[in-house]
Amino acid sequence: MPLKIYLSGEIHTDWRERIIAGAEGLDVSFDSPVTDHAASDDCGVAILGAESDKFWHDHKGAKLNAIRTRRGIEAADVVVVRFGEKYKQWNAAFDAGYAAALGKSLIVLHGADHQHALKEVDAAALAVAETPEQVVQILTYVLTGALPG
Amino acid sequence: MPLKIYLSGEIHTDWRERIIAGAEGLDVSFDSPVTDHAASDDCGVAILGAESDKFWHDHKGAKLNAIRTRRGIEAADVVVVRFGEKYKQWNAAFDAGYAAALGKSLIVLHGADHQHALKEVDAAALAVAETPEQVVQILTYVLTGALPG
Amino acid sequence: MPLKIYLSGEIHTDWRERIIAGAEGLDVSFDSPVTDHAASDDCGVAILGAESDKFWHDHKGAKLNAIRTRRGIEAADVVVVRFGEKYKQWNAAFDAGYAAALGKSLIVLHGADHQHALKEVDAAALAVAETPEQVVQILTYVLTGALPG
Amino acid sequence: MPLKIYLSGEIHTDWRERIIAGAEGLDVSFDSPVTDHAASDDCGVAILGAESDKFWHDHKGAKLNAIRTRRGIEAADVVVVRFGEKYKQWNAAFDAGYAAALGKSLIVLHGADHQHALKEVDAAALAVAETPEQVVQILTYVLTGALPG
Amino acid sequence: MPLKIYLSGEIHTDWRERIIAGAEGLDVSFDSPVTDHAASDDCGVAILGAESDKFWHDHKGAKLNAIRTRRGIEAADVVVVRFGEKYKQWNAAFDAGYAAALGKSLIVLHGADHQHALKEVDAAALAVAETPEQVVQILTYVLTGALPG
Amino acid sequence: MPLKIYLSGEIHTDWRERIIAGAEGLDVSFDSPVTDHAASDDCGVAILGAESDKFWHDHKGAKLNAIRTRRGIEAADVVVVRFGEKYKQWNAAFDAGYAAALGKSLIVLHGADHQHALKEVDAAALAVAETPEQVVQILTYVLTGALPG
Amino acid sequence: MPLKIYLSGEIHTDWRERIIAGAEGLDVSFDSPVTDHAASDDCGVAILGAESDKFWHDHKGAKLNAIRTRRGIEAADVVVVRFGEKYKQWNAAFDAGYAAALGKSLIVLHGADHQHALKEVDAAALAVAETPEQVVQILTYVLTGALPG
Amino acid sequence: MPLKIYLSGEIHTDWRERIIAGAEGLDVSFDSPVTDHAASDDCGVAILGAESDKFWHDHKGAKLNAIRTRRGIEAADVVVVRFGEKYKQWNAAFDAGYAAALGKSLIVLHGADHQHALKEVDAAALAVAETPEQVVQILTYVLTGALPG
Repeated sequence: MPLKIYLSGEIHTDWRERIIAGAEGLDVSFDSPVTDHAASDDCGVAILGAESDKFWHDHKGAKLNAIRTRRGIEAADVVVVRFGEKYKQWNAAFDAGYAAALGKSLIVLHGADHQHALKEVDAAALAVAETPEQVVQILTYVLTGALPG
Repeated sequence: MPLKIYLSGEIHTDWRERIIAGAEGLDVSFDSPVTDHAASDDCGVAILGAESDKFWHDHKGAKLNAIRTRRGIEAADVVVVRFGEKYKQWNAAFDAGYAAALGKSLIVLHGADHQHALKEVDAAALAVAETPEQVVQILTYVLTGALPG
Repeated sequence: MPLKIYLSGEIHTDWRERIIAGAEGLDVSFDSPVTDHAASDDCGVAILGAESDKFWHDHKGAKLNAIRTRRGIEAADVVVVRFGEKYKQWNAAFDAGYAAALGKSLIVLHGADHQHALKEVDAAALAVAETPEQVVQILTYVLTGALPG
Repeated sequence: MPLKIYLSGEIHTDWRERIIAGAEGLDVSFDSPVTDHAASDDCGVAILGAESDKFWHDHKGAKLNAIRTRRGIEAADVVVVRFGEKYKQWNAAFDAGYAAALGKSLIVLHGADHQHALKEVDAAALAVAETPEQVVQILTYVLTGALPG
Repeated sequence: MPLKIYLSGEIHTDWRERIIAGAEGLDVSFDSPVTDHAASDDCGVAILGAESDKFWHDHKGAKLNAIRTRRGIEAADVVVVRFGEKYKQWNAAFDAGYAAALGKSLIVLHGADHQHALKEVDAAALAVAETPEQVVQILTYVLTGALPG
Repeated sequence: MPLKIYLSGEIHTDWRERIIAGAEGLDVSFDSPVTDHAASDDCGVAILGAESDKFWHDHKGAKLNAIRTRRGIEAADVVVVRFGEKYKQWNAAFDAGYAAALGKSLIVLHGADHQHALKEVDAAALAVAETPEQVVQILTYVLTGALPG
Repeated sequence: MPLKIYLSGEIHTDWRERIIAGAEGLDVSFDSPVTDHAASDDCGVAILGAESDKFWHDHKGAKLNAIRTRRGIEAADVVVVRFGEKYKQWNAAFDAGYAAALGKSLIVLHGADHQHALKEVDAAALAVAETPEQVVQILTYVLTGALPG
Repeated sequence: MPLKIYLSGEIHTDWRERIIAGAEGLDVSFDSPVTDHAASDDCGVAILGAESDKFWHDHKGAKLNAIRTRRGIEAADVVVVRFGEKYKQWNAAFDAGYAAALGKSLIVLHGADHQHALKEVDAAALAVAETPEQVVQILTYVLTGALPG
């Protein structure tokens, strides 16, 4: 059975693509949230009807997205959570906590400037990486025992 | 047995004190993280020895804090997570995810301006409140059936 | 430790009072939902703010009630679910399913006319009673070994 | 692995067929209870011997059906529960409670007239739909990210 | 908290009394099934109404007894199962299997002549004793570290 | 995925063969203990070395058999436990208890003369059958909805 | 409720006494294995009868000790595992693995010379201490927020 | 589905190869840790960056290895733990404890000279073997019922 990996967090850079491309040839499968920002925001009202109140507009959408997100995390062997440079990204931290409580192997991916703010998340992780290529190297090592270089 | 409540998140305003004071007379018990910011940051090195690298300095502290935090969340019936006006507060969102995965009743407490950014967290909650007094009213209702006013 | 009993379902007759009175002297503790119909319907908006849409009005209230209901069922040794003569009572059947999935000992209390419609619920129960007095006799027997008469 | 969906509830309209037909081409698998009403009622006595008492007639059948129902719910990623216009449908609400306690993603499908009576069930759901086509759109979105229209 | 012990099995000799008397002064609490054979057989029909079919007579009683038995086993730290000289005692072996699946510490108590027939049960146990006094010595050792003699 | 069935209990009649043959064409898979009585008794010492004491001879064998038995029960959707006419068959009752504690769908298969002695086991079952053919009919109904005749 | 701490591992130095004395005044409770080496080795045969084979002599004793050890670990909030200077201490590492799999907060206590050999155990811990006094400081901080000095 | 086996422990002899070769033709799948000692020690710093402190060098590596190890143990039906002649091998004992807490079938493989030191580990096992060939015979028996010779 392939190593199942869920890629949570930032949706505005190409980190998922770089990991997936780098992992080509490994016995892995990837899952992730819907990364189309507009669709992700509006899915609830687009399917289940408009809301005049923005809170419920968001609420309906967030719950539909949870169907996908929870399944992805619960099925995963490894959850990679990426924190980017912008936005609050509380959903990424929420996913990390969710994964940690389920005992998933957690890999956190972020720049050095976020180290202090993410210390509780990092403390729950089995690896803290700075680049998607390091994540690929981790997956390669975990599956094959081979180290880079 | 009292209703056990864990108060997670922001440590720079008096929201915990207001909830605890307001809940006086109810059959509740409260737990929370260490809210002394400096102690919380430095506990690891203060007890287990200095680190030259800030990452490990933070790491040792975050793990000690996790001993308290996880016990508090796991023992709780209700987890209240407060998001304040400042900072990244990823640990608060992490706690919310952790609590959600364990099936805890989650109450999120934040101002209206954070609604969109917190929509995934709110979607996992049984109540979204704006003031500590509303949390007190929820606890009062849940325990006694009495409504405010 | 007392036998913990959660009394779910119908709120318009005195079945809870009859069980609690009948069980006096036994080592039991009782919990139940908020049985004030108006408070139970309106708690969400009374505490967290009015909703123009009846669906969200109901939704906010149902979630607050869930804080109490789930804790009650999860803490219980025995869940008694009463189906009365009127209303849809889907929340009672929902509670019965919730209790069954958690492996709680389930006692269903209903009149003979509901037998066919409740057959799936009854099939998950350890006892199907018609009167509150029978429930008292069950609790007495389970705790003391004494039979009626 | 396909998204596994259990279709619980009403057996007198074609809502299951409409969902299954609409989901053609998606990576999904469907399961449901036995929807032949007469077989479902009589299976117990047909296989295990007649009962003179209607209660035990029903009981034997309900337990056989439970072998299928529980497996279906426990194996599912998503449980869709449909409440129709007629009958008590307590088994549907029981299934919803069972699914909720197991942490399944719950989609409830019912007309607007049942909103108040189903508020506790809806409060446990990640989506409340009115038509089978909306359920198809949810499944499509969850699996592909595509929205209708 | 006291060590909680459930005493399952044979009801026709005084083994329970000898263990309870021998354990006086230890920090233990004991639970057991209803050991009044007639009450245990007839409780179902005595409370919930007569059955013309002996199978359902037994069935109703066995289910009421299960309310007590399952709670007792699930709450226990240690489950002692006694097999006597007579009868099939399948309920004792059932309780042993139930306890083993829940990860309870299992002590089996039987004469040497049953060793071969009970080998699967014994293989799941942490101790196989021949006398109630040995069980007392085990409880004494486990709680105080003191050995006999 | 096929319905996974574990066939526990009596090894001296052809009930397993009759169920397996009868279920041909259904989407089922079967597992069972080693049914070679001599091998089952002696496997421990045959592989791991002789024991002078019969208790340990039996013990080593019973533990090896447990590797197979526990995996079979834990992987099963349905556990069928057969009680025959002879022997103590405590291992069958142990397996039934083990399966019940794990929430498996339990089918008990025995003659009418064992009804009273097996009442606790039957009370935990979803079906009590007297013939292997009834078990086949149950499996057929559960998988296809078709009733006999 | 006090913080429950299980003290596993080395039995030849006074580390347990130093932690317990140092923690005086804190809301903690301590449990540990039987630390009388001779009693721990011989308990099985002293109570359940002599064995000619040393393996079974050890086996019976180890299983009795497991009744106490597993209860202690399963009930604990925090498991402290001490590795001393001598012996293989595989039971200490076994307890650490057992605690880690149950999600307990793990504190490992050992000298610097064992760092490399214990790296997998340390990697599962929330704190790695060198002295009993550090463990006391951790417990003090976790319960009161107070740091040493 | 094949019987899934995790081979934990000693990495300096050919015991894994002998088991895998001996099991050819059986319906089994094997997993194991990375057995390249140097890669296993250095993987953390090779991928995630050098550490000046040996403790963190080890720590980063041990955590990466845990991604593989925990997945392997959690997915396994049977965990074989080999203790060799040399080194502390605390990670092997840790894995055994981890597997035991998860209820995995545990086979311990070691020479007679380690019997006393491994008595707690052996007490949690379903088999204690001395040679890889015995492990092959166990797997053969568990899967096919065939005994050696």
